[in-house]
Amino acid sequence: MGLITLLTDYGTSDSYVGEMKGTLARLAPGAAVVDITHHVPPGDVRAARYLLGRTWGRFPSGTIHLAVVDPGVGTDRACLLVAVAGHYFLAPDNGLLTGIADRADASVLGLKLPHGAAPTFHGRDLFAPAAAALAEGCSPAELGTPLGRVPVIIELPQPHYEGKNVVGEVIYVDRFGNLVTNLTPAEVPSYAVLVVEDSDIGPLVATFGAVTSGSPLAYLGSGGQVEIAVRDGSAARRFGIGVGGRVRARLG
Amino acid sequence: MGLITLLTDYGTSDSYVGEMKGTLARLAPGAAVVDITHHVPPGDVRAARYLLGRTWGRFPSGTIHLAVVDPGVGTDRACLLVAVAGHYFLAPDNGLLTGIADRADASVLGLKLPHGAAPTFHGRDLFAPAAAALAEGCSPAELGTPLGRVPVIIELPQPHYEGKNVVGEVIYVDRFGNLVTNLTPAEVPSYAVLVVEDSDIGPLVATFGAVTSGSPLAYLGSGGQVEIAVRDGSAARRFGIGVGGRVRARLG
Amino acid sequence: MGLITLLTDYGTSDSYVGEMKGTLARLAPGAAVVDITHHVPPGDVRAARYLLGRTWGRFPSGTIHLAVVDPGVGTDRACLLVAVAGHYFLAPDNGLLTGIADRADASVLGLKLPHGAAPTFHGRDLFAPAAAALAEGCSPAELGTPLGRVPVIIELPQPHYEGKNVVGEVIYVDRFGNLVTNLTPAEVPSYAVLVVEDSDIGPLVATFGAVTSGSPLAYLGSGGQVEIAVRDGSAARRFGIGVGGRVRARLG
Repeated sequence: MGLITLLTDYGTSDSYVGEMKGTLARLAPGAAVVDITHHVPPGDVRAARYLLGRTWGRFPSGTIHLAVVDPGVGTDRACLLVAVAGHYFLAPDNGLLTGIADRADASVLGLKLPHGAAPTFHGRDLFAPAAAALAEGCSPAELGTPLGRVPVIIELPQPHYEGKNVVGEVIYVDRFGNLVTNLTPAEVPSYAVLVVEDSDIGPLVATFGAVTSGSPLAYLGSGGQVEIAVRDGSAARRFGIGVGGRVRARLG
Repeated sequence: MGLITLLTDYGTSDSYVGEMKGTLARLAPGAAVVDITHHVPPGDVRAARYLLGRTWGRFPSGTIHLAVVDPGVGTDRACLLVAVAGHYFLAPDNGLLTGIADRADASVLGLKLPHGAAPTFHGRDLFAPAAAALAEGCSPAELGTPLGRVPVIIELPQPHYEGKNVVGEVIYVDRFGNLVTNLTPAEVPSYAVLVVEDSDIGPLVATFGAVTSGSPLAYLGSGGQVEIAVRDGSAARRFGIGVGGRVRARLG
Repeated sequence: MGLITLLTDYGTSDSYVGEMKGTLARLAPGAAVVDITHHVPPGDVRAARYLLGRTWGRFPSGTIHLAVVDPGVGTDRACLLVAVAGHYFLAPDNGLLTGIADRADASVLGLKLPHGAAPTFHGRDLFAPAAAALAEGCSPAELGTPLGRVPVIIELPQPHYEGKNVVGEVIYVDRFGNLVTNLTPAEVPSYAVLVVEDSDIGPLVATFGAVTSGSPLAYLGSGGQVEIAVRDGSAARRFGIGVGGRVRARLG
């Protein structure tokens, strides 16, 4: 049958997603199509990488992930088909597949540009037909050729030590205003106190109910990173910070 | 096969809905998944109750409804599995299932918390696996045990009489700015004049076309309640009121 | 099986789309349902026409397109069932099907109003049941009778000549702020210079990468019309214009 996920910055108010889905329905009538999101901020490859990275492994082996946040559409940037861990990924070669295409066990192909593809809509005219072909049983080798070089990788910010602090930063802000950081339990022992800018939040707690309504908290988020939230509120608004904002764990 | 509906306050710009759908696709590959909405205002259990309450009966018998607006996630609030009228409902025990779980013919179970569930994402780690198990043919008794007490119920505002008026209130505002009230045809005879705050709207009319563009109207809405709208406009903006706003029917 | 697309102005924060999908799931359990969009601006029949017009042909023959932007719901406006080019269309008779229902090869029927249909929600109570019936194998003749007159058509703005200029206008603005015009390659030769209000944009280029970040460009859009964009920005904001705004091609 085939299962295809979609992740784009196309929004859902125009016809772009519908045109992709029409193309998939026409070329792979039996495939199931699932939206991850179409509301990546326009052109925000880093946000797309974060969202795809924490989601794809939830899907069953054999899933085809089509991810298009593509400010370089129509230029000579490559279009990737990556096979790894039993999943397939189709995306522009702009760092969106960081953490996937650069895995040692990844097979990375460059896709051919179909004749007549609109130079501003490769989601519909290049990536969707390739996803449909995979869903219909084509082998990757029929759709592309080995890339022959390292795919584009986004360098992700790494926590570092400053005296008795581990200093991380916000890598994503979700719809609730929760701040996802690049800190993980490996750097944040249970006695550490999380600090946002100059405000003490306290040590990691289990869930929102551990603090009173309106209070900030730090916890291990469902994606495996340390997060900062405000119960029944928005940490992004409370602290006035976003992606790149400084969050540290005080170790002593 | 199995049909699963989703209603949450997760929004569609993050990966949360995608992670739930991945879990469902992995654990119940044959099930069809339909979104009711993911745009319940964050934590607004009353809005979720209203939306689910008017929608679930449209689906065929056997449908599994997964509804997660869950500000108490990770605390010791129960997680419900309710079977009623041939439908199944999975939701936190916070009043979201008011009108469903409190029906005399409802069977109400409490779900077991799976080992390793993220304490902030029971939608993905508890409710979705339970929905998948039902879709795959598990019996409710394999997934939970009788709750053994009354589930949490939201007390809904009831219309009351003040002299020759029935006084109700707005219980929901939709995307068009239409005001859904708790008044029904039982309280509002055809000769009654609807009044919002101090503005006379007139008696119930059949549809928007009964008034000129820009004029307010009162009518029996598609969910069975009296609604106030402005043709080609927003009643919420016109009258400056929202949920809890006063709407009355003058009977003489 | 049946494939049904949905295009409405219902938004996705209320239960309206869910109620339609419940109705479809109940009446046509085997049909696949695909959203084109539910975010047409409320009542904007012209935007709906544009979006449906560029999307439907991407879907396979046999697809049923349900399109409801219907400010006249519940009045005596007709409800159309149009068969053309192997596709089916269900929509109110308000111009939404301009370019489809007025084709010489179109068969145009008027739908019967089902008993008990809510006068404000024909999407759920009239159009969805008709779509489900078609998906289940009903013939159009079982669902309606020949309209017996010309369906309502929206007169679309046409480019005109002013001296050495072809003058067009913006017919749609997408989520990125790209301006879709009514100019096509037929009127805009490669030597023509596009001009928005009084700003020279230059001749058509292939794609965004042809200009530097922040610069405007004119190009042939993926829907077949000339578009104006700002690379990594919004042309709508840059030029302060929207639908109806003037865009011309200077021919000499």
